[in-house]
Amino acid sequence: MADWQVITGGVTAPKGFRAAGIAAGLKPSGSPDLALIVSDCEAIAAGVFTTSQVRAACVDYCQELLEAKPSARAILCNAGQANACTGEQGKQDAIASANAIARALNLPENSALIASTGVIGQRIKMDQLQAGIPKLVSSLSSEGGEHADRAIVTTDLITKSIALETQIGDRPVRMGGTAKGSGMIHPNMATMLAFVTCDAAVSSPLWQEMVRRATAKSFNQITVDGDTSTNDCLLALANGESRTPAITAPGPEADRLEAMLTEVCIHLAKSIARDGEGATCLIEVVVTGAMSDRAASQIARTIAGSSLVKSAIFGRDPNWGRIAGAAGRAGTPFDQAELSIALGDFTLMTDGTPQPFDRAAASAYLKQCAERSTLAMSKILLSSTQSSNELVVTETQVPFERQSNAIEALSHPVVITVDVGDGPGAAKAWGCDLSYDYVKINAEYTT
Amino acid sequence: MADWQVITGGVTAPKGFRAAGIAAGLKPSGSPDLALIVSDCEAIAAGVFTTSQVRAACVDYCQELLEAKPSARAILCNAGQANACTGEQGKQDAIASANAIARALNLPENSALIASTGVIGQRIKMDQLQAGIPKLVSSLSSEGGEHADRAIVTTDLITKSIALETQIGDRPVRMGGTAKGSGMIHPNMATMLAFVTCDAAVSSPLWQEMVRRATAKSFNQITVDGDTSTNDCLLALANGESRTPAITAPGPEADRLEAMLTEVCIHLAKSIARDGEGATCLIEVVVTGAMSDRAASQIARTIAGSSLVKSAIFGRDPNWGRIAGAAGRAGTPFDQAELSIALGDFTLMTDGTPQPFDRAAASAYLKQCAERSTLAMSKILLSSTQSSNELVVTETQVPFERQSNAIEALSHPVVITVDVGDGPGAAKAWGCDLSYDYVKINAEYTT
Repeated sequence: MADWQVITGGVTAPKGFRAAGIAAGLKPSGSPDLALIVSDCEAIAAGVFTTSQVRAACVDYCQELLEAKPSARAILCNAGQANACTGEQGKQDAIASANAIARALNLPENSALIASTGVIGQRIKMDQLQAGIPKLVSSLSSEGGEHADRAIVTTDLITKSIALETQIGDRPVRMGGTAKGSGMIHPNMATMLAFVTCDAAVSSPLWQEMVRRATAKSFNQITVDGDTSTNDCLLALANGESRTPAITAPGPEADRLEAMLTEVCIHLAKSIARDGEGATCLIEVVVTGAMSDRAASQIARTIAGSSLVKSAIFGRDPNWGRIAGAAGRAGTPFDQAELSIALGDFTLMTDGTPQPFDRAAASAYLKQCAERSTLAMSKILLSSTQSSNELVVTETQVPFERQSNAIEALSHPVVITVDVGDGPGAAKAWGCDLSYDYVKINAEYTT
Repeated sequence: MADWQVITGGVTAPKGFRAAGIAAGLKPSGSPDLALIVSDCEAIAAGVFTTSQVRAACVDYCQELLEAKPSARAILCNAGQANACTGEQGKQDAIASANAIARALNLPENSALIASTGVIGQRIKMDQLQAGIPKLVSSLSSEGGEHADRAIVTTDLITKSIALETQIGDRPVRMGGTAKGSGMIHPNMATMLAFVTCDAAVSSPLWQEMVRRATAKSFNQITVDGDTSTNDCLLALANGESRTPAITAPGPEADRLEAMLTEVCIHLAKSIARDGEGATCLIEVVVTGAMSDRAASQIARTIAGSSLVKSAIFGRDPNWGRIAGAAGRAGTPFDQAELSIALGDFTLMTDGTPQPFDRAAASAYLKQCAERSTLAMSKILLSSTQSSNELVVTETQVPFERQSNAIEALSHPVVITVDVGDGPGAAKAWGCDLSYDYVKINAEYTT
C-alpha cells in the first residue's frame, strides 16, 4: 500500500509555495512562456543537471549557485529560447534573468534558480522577459501551480504535474511536481525540465541524496529518442513550512519522504515518456535477476529505447525476438540460457527457450493497453485547445478530473518483464511505442 | 592516392575462390537463400562476431572453430532463419549444416564456417538446406560472386559487394567482399553479415589483427537503428593463391594489405548504412581534436546515430544545434568553448560560437547530396526486380556498371565535420537520414 494520497494543486500544493505563469511574448505563438515558483521562506534546494558536455547557461548558473549555497527562494523558467550555445552573452543573460526576478521579489541576488527551454542557439528575449516580470510577480498565487505547468511546456501535448500528501510525525507533509518534455523528434525543444516543491523540514545533505536517488529511479530511466538535452534539469525545493519535525538522519521518516519523492518523480517521468510524439502507449520494462541494480537499469533502458521493440509494440506484435535482442546488446553480461521474457501475463520465453503462447491474445493485450491509455489522454486533450506546432494549453477541466485522467493515462502500461538470472539486481524503465505519426510529424517539419 | 584499383567479381575476384548462390526453399518468397564461398586451398581465417549476450548458434560455432584452428576452406550462409534463440536443437542444426557442406565438398568436418540470417527464434529448415547442398556445390564457379551476393540478403534493397586489386612484390593481390544488412526497422532481419576473400599470403596473427582493426574503422562505425543483432559477423579468408611473398611481419606490404582491407570493409559498411530503410542519403561524420581515437569514434557514432540529427538531415535542415547536442551527450568530455561544426563547406559553429551562414545554400547542399545518391541507387534498383517485403534481386546490369553505380551512390555523403579541441584523436562514422518512409514501412507491418 502506498503511504500517501494524491491531492490537487501541483507545485503549489505544499504549504508556503506560490506560483504563476504568464505569456510574456517569448514564444512566437503568444502562449504562456514565463513561469515562477516562489517559496515564502528560504528552502533547501537540490538540483540534478544534464550530463551533456554542451550545457545551457542556466544549467551552469544553477549548478554553481547550489554548490555555493544549497538553498533558494524562487525558480524562474522561460520557454521559447534555450539560451544554449549562446556564449558569453548567454551567461550574462542568465545572470541578468536571475537578478531581475530576485530584485522584483525583494530578495538578495543569489536567491533565484533559473531554467530555460526552447530553441538551442537563441538567446532569451531579454526585453520581453524584463517587461513581463512585474506581471509575473503580481500573478503569484497559492493556487498558481497549473499556470506554472502551462508556461513551461513547449511542444508537449499535455501539461504534467502531480501532488501527494503523507504524514510525518502525525502531521501532513505535501509534495508537488511539474515537468515538461516530450522528447522524440521535435524542432530543438526536447528539453526535460522538472520542478519539485515540498513543505517537509529536511536537512540539506539528506534532501540532496534523496533527490539524486529518486532521479536515478525515474528521470534517468525514461528514454524517448535517446537525445539528452543541453538544458535538462530537475530542481527540488523543501521549505519546512509543514512545521513537521526536521528529518536530519536516515530512518522511517526519511524513508517515507524519499518514497514520496520517488513516486512524484516516477509519475512525472512516466508522463514525459507517455507524451512522446506520436506515442499510443506507455511501455514499462521490469528487469530482475541481474548482477546489480545498475546492470538491471542498463538492460531495462536498452529494451525501452530499442526502435525495434518500440515499433513492434506499435504494431501490436508480441515479438520476443526483438526484446531478447535488445537485452543481449545492453552491454552487461548474462547467460542467455537463463533469459526469461513475459509480456503482460504472457510468458514468451523461459530460460532461453521460446514458449508457446496465444499470439492473438497477446496482441489483443497490447491493443487494449494502448486503447485505455489513449482514451484517458483524449479526455485531457479534449479539454485543451492547441495550436499546430506549439502547445496553447487552456485546459478547462477541473483540476481533480484532469489529474485523474493523467493518472489513468499512465495506469495501463505495456509491461515487459525480463529475468536474466539469479542476481540481486532489479530495475524498471519506461518508454513509449514508435508510431507512424512520430516520423510523419517530423517529416513534415522543415525550416 | 589510393594504392589499389576497383575490379569486378566480388568475393570471387581473388584467385582460388569459387562461390554459388541458389534458392533452396528456405525463404517463403522463393528467392535465393543459400550461399557458398569456397577456397581451393586451406585459407587463413579471421572472424569478428556480435558482442550481444544473445548469440545465434552459428556465431558460437564459428568462434569456437576459429579459436581451435584459425583457417577454413568454406563459408556456408543461409538466409530466412536466423537460428538464434533456438536452444540445443539450434546448436545441433548449426553443426549438422557445417558438417553437411564439408562432406559435400569432400573436406574434413571442421573445414566450413557458417552464418545464418533471417527470423530470430526460427530453426534452419534443415530438410531444404540438406536437399539444396548438391545443387549449391555443383553451381560453384569462379564467377559466382554475384550469385552469393544475392543469396545472403534479406530485406536489403540492393546487394553489396566490392573487389579491389593492389600490388605486393610487383604481383597483383586481390580482395573481394560481400555484405548484407540494412538495419533500421525490419521484421527481425536486421543482421549484418560480411564475408571477405583475399588471395594474399599473410600470417594468421597479422591477418587477425588487420581484420580486427579494419572492423573497428568500418562496421563498428556505422549506425542505423542502434540494434546489434544476435547474428552479426564478419568472416575473412586469405588463401595465398596470388603466390606473392608471404607477409609475416609489419611493414609496407602489411600496411598496403591492411589499407585495402580497410577500404573493402568501409565500402561494405557504407553500403549497409546507405541501404537503411527509407534512407535518402549517406551521412559521414568526421571528428577531430578528441583526446583519443576512441573518444572521437564515440562522438562520431553518437552524432551519426542521433534521431534528431538524422531527421534534420532528411528535412534538409542545417540544424547545428542538434549536432552540438549529440556531440555533448556522447559520454566523452570536451570543452564546449572549443567545439566547431561544419556541414559540407559551411561553417556552422567555431569555438563554441554559432557562425552566420547561408541557410538556403546549406539546405541546398543537403538536397543535392541526397539527389545524387538517390539517382545512383535508382539506376541499380531499375535493373532489379523485387517483391514487396523480401528482396528478389535479379540484377540485369553488367557487373561493371552495377559496381560503378554502387560506388556513385556512396560518393555524395552529407559530410558533418566536428572538431572538439586540440587532441590527437580522430575518427569517422557513417549513418543515414531518418525519413518518413522509415516508419511508414514499419507502421504498415503487422504480424
